[in-house]
Amino acid sequence: MADNARQNTPAAIMRMSRLYAPTLKELPADAELASHKLALRAGLIRRSASGIYSFLPLGYRVIKNIERIVREEMDAIGCQEVLLPVVQPAELWQQSGRWDDYGPELARLADRHERMFCLGPTHEEIITDLVRGEIRSYRDLPFTLYQLQIKFRDEIRPRFGLLRGREFIMKDAYSFHASQESLDEHYRAQSEAYARICDRLSLAYRAVDADNGQIGGSVSTEFLALADDGEAELIYCRCGYAANTETYGDDFDRDNLPACPRCGAPMQIARGIEVSQVFQLGDKYSRTMGLVYQDESGADCYPLMGCYGVGISRSLAAVIEQHHDDDGIMWPRSIAPYQVAILMLSEGDEAAAFAETLATELAACGIEVLIDDRDERAGVKFADADLIGTPLQVIVGKRGFEAGEVELKLRKTGERSTATLAEAATTVKRTLDT
Amino acid sequence: MADNARQNTPAAIMRMSRLYAPTLKELPADAELASHKLALRAGLIRRSASGIYSFLPLGYRVIKNIERIVREEMDAIGCQEVLLPVVQPAELWQQSGRWDDYGPELARLADRHERMFCLGPTHEEIITDLVRGEIRSYRDLPFTLYQLQIKFRDEIRPRFGLLRGREFIMKDAYSFHASQESLDEHYRAQSEAYARICDRLSLAYRAVDADNGQIGGSVSTEFLALADDGEAELIYCRCGYAANTETYGDDFDRDNLPACPRCGAPMQIARGIEVSQVFQLGDKYSRTMGLVYQDESGADCYPLMGCYGVGISRSLAAVIEQHHDDDGIMWPRSIAPYQVAILMLSEGDEAAAFAETLATELAACGIEVLIDDRDERAGVKFADADLIGTPLQVIVGKRGFEAGEVELKLRKTGERSTATLAEAATTVKRTLDT
Repeated sequence: MADNARQNTPAAIMRMSRLYAPTLKELPADAELASHKLALRAGLIRRSASGIYSFLPLGYRVIKNIERIVREEMDAIGCQEVLLPVVQPAELWQQSGRWDDYGPELARLADRHERMFCLGPTHEEIITDLVRGEIRSYRDLPFTLYQLQIKFRDEIRPRFGLLRGREFIMKDAYSFHASQESLDEHYRAQSEAYARICDRLSLAYRAVDADNGQIGGSVSTEFLALADDGEAELIYCRCGYAANTETYGDDFDRDNLPACPRCGAPMQIARGIEVSQVFQLGDKYSRTMGLVYQDESGADCYPLMGCYGVGISRSLAAVIEQHHDDDGIMWPRSIAPYQVAILMLSEGDEAAAFAETLATELAACGIEVLIDDRDERAGVKFADADLIGTPLQVIVGKRGFEAGEVELKLRKTGERSTATLAEAATTVKRTLDT
Repeated sequence: MADNARQNTPAAIMRMSRLYAPTLKELPADAELASHKLALRAGLIRRSASGIYSFLPLGYRVIKNIERIVREEMDAIGCQEVLLPVVQPAELWQQSGRWDDYGPELARLADRHERMFCLGPTHEEIITDLVRGEIRSYRDLPFTLYQLQIKFRDEIRPRFGLLRGREFIMKDAYSFHASQESLDEHYRAQSEAYARICDRLSLAYRAVDADNGQIGGSVSTEFLALADDGEAELIYCRCGYAANTETYGDDFDRDNLPACPRCGAPMQIARGIEVSQVFQLGDKYSRTMGLVYQDESGADCYPLMGCYGVGISRSLAAVIEQHHDDDGIMWPRSIAPYQVAILMLSEGDEAAAFAETLATELAACGIEVLIDDRDERAGVKFADADLIGTPLQVIVGKRGFEAGEVELKLRKTGERSTATLAEAATTVKRTLDT
């Protein structure tokens, strides 16, 4: 029985004639960045209000792939998944002091009984309240809970599509510790997991010391995806040192870059996208909100906390920034909405049957396939395949098919090759794996 | 490479000593229903505010299993998954007329620029706006989009835990059609999928004609899980006819039940839980919001729409209502947080190594395993295993283990058997499958 095997059976084969992926002819004036333009043009997202987007089928498949990678990395370092509320009571934010401190980025609302709530931009208060009263002893520590959840931050000027939205998807993890050593250890494990997540998303990045900002605490590292059009500015050195220029404050002089504090060499400047950040919170939340445990001597202590965030929807945009050309997106295989596109230029039942057999054979190996079976000109199909960015295209051309072969094109390099019909599946798998 | 195989690697083996599943000693006074009490006691959920709950690791594993089943059934009838915003602009609700009609259950908020928004209790406006301007021709129809998303309804009196919460998880699907026949056909396909979902969740249910309420439209069917303590009341006949008593309005006389309208026989009364509902919306939203397509003659027409909802968090509660006893939950295997619990009553390295090997072998077959390795009395472990409700318990007792065998206990029937250590994995798999 399917339920017993607990296998995911995603819609592994999709036909373009059925796919809801409307292309966009006129781009909005505020779409400046490649990731914003391409996400709209390729039918990944649509704007529902300023800074608020809907994910269409192709875009949401990418989101689910990013979420899968993040879940695997969190589970691998012993984190446990929970789901915390979007709507949070004001009292908890008053206890931590952030109800007043947070400012207008915190969206507030009253319920029908005039009780005040906010939409969670982050979940320190909710998680501290959740574990308060449930942990008793040092033996209950350490542990880490995480969630993948919608968040809302009422940005004064939402822009750049998913890069600076108001409603966004985030993975946030919260850890609880009885000692600084234990917090340090998990902070390192999270940082290493974040590096692996960037690698698996094929994101070139730099880890930089960062400001803790409204979250609080004292130690923080930010993972910046390198990008020409990011919102963050970083300086870095060949020795491996990198820093957000914000940490230099008003003293920073763009025309007179400081020497590397680690090796003294001259540094370079670049602009980045903040895809994730880890924080040591210390006892800021446990102390203000009264979360205590008893140590070995029976004395009440405040646990030390860490929090660890990955911008999921922002990561989608960062990957597009790093993986595109003038024709469209070039998805890394790990998160592509489909891994193979079969372009049907040859009509007739035989070609259709071949595509069906090839797709079924690939799907059986866990490879998702998009078949372009639309009644469109070849040029339209070539352009849309490049725009959507499936890593490998299989072109079933008229003359080729009659001669018993198909053409393979790697989206990233443009490299082309041919395969006989009989060896098409094997060749596709081998080409994808290399 | 893991990413290429696209396999889910859930945390298939968990140790109770590490699991964040705090048990609750004192139940809140408002916890009247078995599902509410047991979800709290077993550490599935915690209340964060009135009608607003956090899902702990065990509870969220069940939610993800229900979501998987719903996704599979939606994908199987050709629906495509999207993600629509939680925060929705007032203008769209003003266009449909529901901004005024909906009343205080619609949670409203102003952003920092004093623009009005609401938290989506349902997504007809957002989806109609999304496809408006993107579909052009009758050839673009029919199609169905669905999402699994957080919703918010500001209930005047939230109660019964997840059954009548304010923030809840729902699957909602929306279909678009060029003809009534096409709508009827998909409405039937959805109804059949809903019946399969109830079956796969092991929910005994009745499908009844229903009122369209605030959603609008004219035709609706509700799927009521049979329960002693549900909020809905239904009458049903042996011939298969069933109806929500609400559809009889003020005329309904509990002491003088109407005859079955289909066969004339006397009917019976019972209380149900509304787990899902399907609606034919007609052109209510397409007409008020100006969503048009061109028919074959080039004339502008309003698509007919349907919408189809499954309460995900409510389904969790409904399953507990139908599957529990005085000792705790009896999860159906399809959605159990773990399928097997290994209770370690025997100490020592040999027993621990045996449990590790057994769990690894089961996990390789897609069976999730919870090992109770806590330093607790046997009685505590027995009670917690029954409370959490894993379908099969493997009891590694002191004397049994020394004699080379373990005991198996089926949670649902209480049936016990033994297996030799060498055959434990095979016996567990066979017992689960029967």
